Amino acid sequence: MDKLSSLTRFKAACPYLHRTKSSTLRTLCTSASPRFPSLSVLTEKATNCPVMGPALTTRSKQIVAGYASVAGNADVEQIHKQKGVFPPPGATVEMCPHASAARAAARTAEELAAAAAKKKAAQHAGRATSSKEAAAAGCPFHKAAASTASTSAQTMPDHTGFNYEQFFVTELDKKHKDKSYRYFNNINRLAEKFPVAHTHSVKEEVEVWCANDYLGMGNNPVVLETMHRTLDKYGHGAGGTRNIAGNGAMHLGLERELAALHRKPAALVFSSCYVANDATLSTLGTKLPGCVIFSDRMNHASMIQGMRHSTAKRVIFEHNDLVDLENKLKQYPKETPKIIAFESVYSMCGSIGPIKEICDLAEQYGALTFLDEVHAVGLYGPRGAGVAEHLDYEAHRAAGRSVEPIKGSVMDRVDIITGTLGKAYGAVGGYIAGSDDFVDMIRSYAPGFIFTTSLPPVVVAGASASVAYQTEYVGDRQLKQVNVREVKRRFAEIDIPVVPGPSHIVPVLVGDAALAKAASDKLLSEHNIYVQSINYPTVAVGEERLRITVTPRHTLEQMDKLIRAVDQTFTELGINRLEDWKAVGGRASVGLPGQVPVEPIWTDEQLGFADGTTPKTLRNGARPVVDMQAVEVSRSRFNHLLGPKTGPISSKREQNETEKLLEATRILEAALVNGGLNLKTGAAHYNAIDSVPIPTPVTVAAAA
Amino acid sequence: MDKLSSLTRFKAACPYLHRTKSSTLRTLCTSASPRFPSLSVLTEKATNCPVMGPALTTRSKQIVAGYASVAGNADVEQIHKQKGVFPPPGATVEMCPHASAARAAARTAEELAAAAAKKKAAQHAGRATSSKEAAAAGCPFHKAAASTASTSAQTMPDHTGFNYEQFFVTELDKKHKDKSYRYFNNINRLAEKFPVAHTHSVKEEVEVWCANDYLGMGNNPVVLETMHRTLDKYGHGAGGTRNIAGNGAMHLGLERELAALHRKPAALVFSSCYVANDATLSTLGTKLPGCVIFSDRMNHASMIQGMRHSTAKRVIFEHNDLVDLENKLKQYPKETPKIIAFESVYSMCGSIGPIKEICDLAEQYGALTFLDEVHAVGLYGPRGAGVAEHLDYEAHRAAGRSVEPIKGSVMDRVDIITGTLGKAYGAVGGYIAGSDDFVDMIRSYAPGFIFTTSLPPVVVAGASASVAYQTEYVGDRQLKQVNVREVKRRFAEIDIPVVPGPSHIVPVLVGDAALAKAASDKLLSEHNIYVQSINYPTVAVGEERLRITVTPRHTLEQMDKLIRAVDQTFTELGINRLEDWKAVGGRASVGLPGQVPVEPIWTDEQLGFADGTTPKTLRNGARPVVDMQAVEVSRSRFNHLLGPKTGPISSKREQNETEKLLEATRILEAALVNGGLNLKTGAAHYNAIDSVPIPTPVTVAAAA
Repeated sequence: MDKLSSLTRFKAACPYLHRTKSSTLRTLCTSASPRFPSLSVLTEKATNCPVMGPALTTRSKQIVAGYASVAGNADVEQIHKQKGVFPPPGATVEMCPHASAARAAARTAEELAAAAAKKKAAQHAGRATSSKEAAAAGCPFHKAAASTASTSAQTMPDHTGFNYEQFFVTELDKKHKDKSYRYFNNINRLAEKFPVAHTHSVKEEVEVWCANDYLGMGNNPVVLETMHRTLDKYGHGAGGTRNIAGNGAMHLGLERELAALHRKPAALVFSSCYVANDATLSTLGTKLPGCVIFSDRMNHASMIQGMRHSTAKRVIFEHNDLVDLENKLKQYPKETPKIIAFESVYSMCGSIGPIKEICDLAEQYGALTFLDEVHAVGLYGPRGAGVAEHLDYEAHRAAGRSVEPIKGSVMDRVDIITGTLGKAYGAVGGYIAGSDDFVDMIRSYAPGFIFTTSLPPVVVAGASASVAYQTEYVGDRQLKQVNVREVKRRFAEIDIPVVPGPSHIVPVLVGDAALAKAASDKLLSEHNIYVQSINYPTVAVGEERLRITVTPRHTLEQMDKLIRAVDQTFTELGINRLEDWKAVGGRASVGLPGQVPVEPIWTDEQLGFADGTTPKTLRNGARPVVDMQAVEVSRSRFNHLLGPKTGPISSKREQNETEKLLEATRILEAALVNGGLNLKTGAAHYNAIDSVPIPTPVTVAAAA
Repeated sequence: MDKLSSLTRFKAACPYLHRTKSSTLRTLCTSASPRFPSLSVLTEKATNCPVMGPALTTRSKQIVAGYASVAGNADVEQIHKQKGVFPPPGATVEMCPHASAARAAARTAEELAAAAAKKKAAQHAGRATSSKEAAAAGCPFHKAAASTASTSAQTMPDHTGFNYEQFFVTELDKKHKDKSYRYFNNINRLAEKFPVAHTHSVKEEVEVWCANDYLGMGNNPVVLETMHRTLDKYGHGAGGTRNIAGNGAMHLGLERELAALHRKPAALVFSSCYVANDATLSTLGTKLPGCVIFSDRMNHASMIQGMRHSTAKRVIFEHNDLVDLENKLKQYPKETPKIIAFESVYSMCGSIGPIKEICDLAEQYGALTFLDEVHAVGLYGPRGAGVAEHLDYEAHRAAGRSVEPIKGSVMDRVDIITGTLGKAYGAVGGYIAGSDDFVDMIRSYAPGFIFTTSLPPVVVAGASASVAYQTEYVGDRQLKQVNVREVKRRFAEIDIPVVPGPSHIVPVLVGDAALAKAASDKLLSEHNIYVQSINYPTVAVGEERLRITVTPRHTLEQMDKLIRAVDQTFTELGINRLEDWKAVGGRASVGLPGQVPVEPIWTDEQLGFADGTTPKTLRNGARPVVDMQAVEVSRSRFNHLLGPKTGPISSKREQNETEKLLEATRILEAALVNGGLNLKTGAAHYNAIDSVPIPTPVTVAAAA
């Protein structure tokens, strides 16, 4: 059968192409299948299709390396012609949902074949075919849910006791029913195009407005330069736990850097701040005799797990409610061990905890303070140590590089600070900072720290370089807040409801799970803007939102586009504006009667408005600022391990440079030979150089 | 005061240099201080010394960048002369414990200054100075313990309620008392010199015999090449959770790779296998109604935590005891949900779980099987999928790259497999593999997966490249086992007691906590061999050991040295040999009466002894084998994201190459100019190339 007749047959058999809007097709195409995350939802459905399915299977068997396409560009044109749709000039196979889905399917030939074999084997084994399965044998596009539920119960061995597979399916169904089932988008953030990412197709680019790489440090040149050098010297994994072969100078250096950042005696690094919070609260809560933990109602899941995993009693106080906290504290004798666990920036609503006032209560009632600065480190304070530092901005700024605690300052009064390396610092990992003995106790007792492979030196070096850079340079922090103000101002102008708050978080209220997901999908498929929707259980039902994160690297043009796209999406989906919420008495702090504006925590003066030193928002094509003094400070941290490094920064460019030089050398050599020059001197030198191994790698710097 | 008189005064004041053996000094110098992990124990003590202390403080104040040395080479010579010791030719400041300690101290000038200021502040505040502190004002070398305990209780605010700091100190004292307090060695494994690492001094190199980078994949060239390329393209951190901006093609690709490795439908990657085990067992154990978990007594801490964190009942069965397990299983109705949680290779004793027999019991009693293959993935089976794969070696070998499950095979019968990327694969992270719905359920419900930043694309790419390489190439696995056999054979020859087992772990029994630590310290300080001692609670009291890990990259000469060093250390410390254990009836499976030899799980045939294909143990200076077919398979995984890559492998050499080329170009240009050649053609080309940005970085390959 030739290609044309195959496609014709396909079209005739499938009612889908006729009836489905192209925007819907696109959404299906960009949503990852939960069962085969490498496939889109559309592709997964297509594999069940009586027409596409066999075709894909046949084709996939012919593929060895996995890079052939089921449909070529000619096929795409054909499909479009048959549909009466004329693709724009330059349209390729990637732009057609059916064709690109088919290509993706072809790449996972093995998975599909395995699934088919599994099905067949189960049938041979004479298992009951449910009525759902029978129904799904028709066009799968209409019965995908039924098919999904039934075809997957065939993997586990047949336990005649408890039906585990059925149980898993039931648990998943609950998620589907309450709309909390998560479909992961395939987002690949490009270092050289920040904040742009490509989707499952490397050719499809979107602007990312929801990542927690808050400052773009994941591609800061000194971070990448340091990581390339560390990779060359120390390779990849750490090779063991901190106790067995996995403790090195990079780890110790990072902990020193973090202790200095918070002006605390000690710090300890964990695989993640989830693990840091979990391990620290569970260890403390279990060890301290009769301990009671007072926990803010909005605390992060990691802290909640840590408390659950401890034997301590947990008392929840209302979010940021000092009166409620005090009422609860005073019910216990002063000598009872207590921990007050809270956050500085609450990431889903953008509110900020009353740190100083909680320290006052802790002192009065004899409690330890445990402050999670995960969404604040790198972003607040003159050195980026977080909100606790920000509250004494001038004192900390004046103290500069000193690591001494500033007695009586809020940061000094907080007993335990936890932070992450995975957000503003653009890396991965988490940490705690506090007194020597506290940190040593956690180091000695927390299983989640002790019994796990330590982070790779290359990751730790990247994090160190990032912390050192940000401790030295305030410009990224300032520009982030300038851009946040601008986005909030523009949303206010067009009545888009933003949950009010003093921080960098821009939560746009939608107020409905299905609408929030639809808005997110629409922004992605129609505007190439990626903002993940935040639904229950991360936020309360009825308070669903789009959580927008603005970075210092978003340009004016990208902001323009975001504002327009959100405006249009709200209109098209009929989502409530601020006035609508006011009319119904408000929700989630939006449109409440008698509301006064919230002052941002970064003051005009701190942002440099007073003395005109405010960094300027970027325009498309402009190069982001790289502060060379901060680069040098960051580099200096690694001199003793990686050798000195000076001059213009190179991050990745040595490779392009190498390419250029190879080509130049070839040209020069050719010129020499053609010119009949005496090559003796040059060649002798060349050979000598070639045979001498250069022990220390030196990165070639290219013009910045 | 001139330098000489300063040193003379120092020597006169300090009784230490006179009385302490140089080997002890060296041990103190290489053990990290628990309070200031960047310092050695010796240095920490030195800062409390009435002579060295003030000198260090004065000197440290003069240091800005932190790279001056307190003592120069001349000083070292002077000290040695005064002690009547003559250093070997080429000895430097790094070789003297006092001088290098002083240098380390100088580097951490801020920490020391901070500690001093803290002490002073506390004294000013009129706090009681304990009698211990008063005593420590004398020579601190004799009273370090007292000083350590008392000087650190001054950081936390003064809570008049519960004394938290005192509590932490008490908890730490317990660790010191039962000898379970851990001192981390500073070990920096060098990619180009595997298995060699440098200590806190970059000039002091040691051979590592205890890391879990079991195959040296942390510096495999295709891994490093892939990571350099990924770093260039995607930067560092993932930027979010898997649900919010942190899910990309690298993550999906790795999960596909791992599912294929285990011939399972799905896999899910976590921050670590500690988190994978904890999250999976706690989620399953809590969700499954009335679940009972049957746990091998020797299970890893991560599994124990996972069970504790679940609401399930836990039943412990004796290590690898099928009779005990069955007796316990039969006490519950078949319809009760059950999980049997066990390991394939138990890492501290090297025993192997009876996987097939446990699957039989699971089927009979209706239980899920949960198998931890952490110390087996990459190391067993023709494709490195672990012991479960190894048990059907030929069938899996014959099936090659197919991802289809092999029906009825042991690996197919295991429901849940967990593994790590941080050991044999030389990276970091952990995973689970199993049925689609099982994996999707954990993905949807486990907080430890959901609420954490995903691993950086660069780490994930490195792990993927490693898994792909090892799936294709069996030689590293074979050579590892060949070397393990050789080391075990040689230890047997000299009656060194090795806990018998069929796996790659070589546990050398010492049988006493203090002796085990002393042996480890002695090997490090006198032989430059690093083997961490394993004490309680990781192993039972009386079963303390040196856990040796042999890799395919250890050379014959390194083995010779290890055997000699262990032999000498056993003699010098009077540690029991095999005969001694036999005489007392045996311990920890060593020297038991009537013991029969344990057959290694890798047979002679699987190691290629039958057909002469066995890989050869390396000799010093030989290049390790890099299998180019496996390199190409690994590279092919990244073509769609990073662009195609062919030719000789380059890993790090592009930088040296760049250096060489720059130099060559300079020479050639000079030659051209000197030769009076017409440069027109060459220069025109050069400029054209220079101005065209090359969009896709292509690494330059150097001769392998």
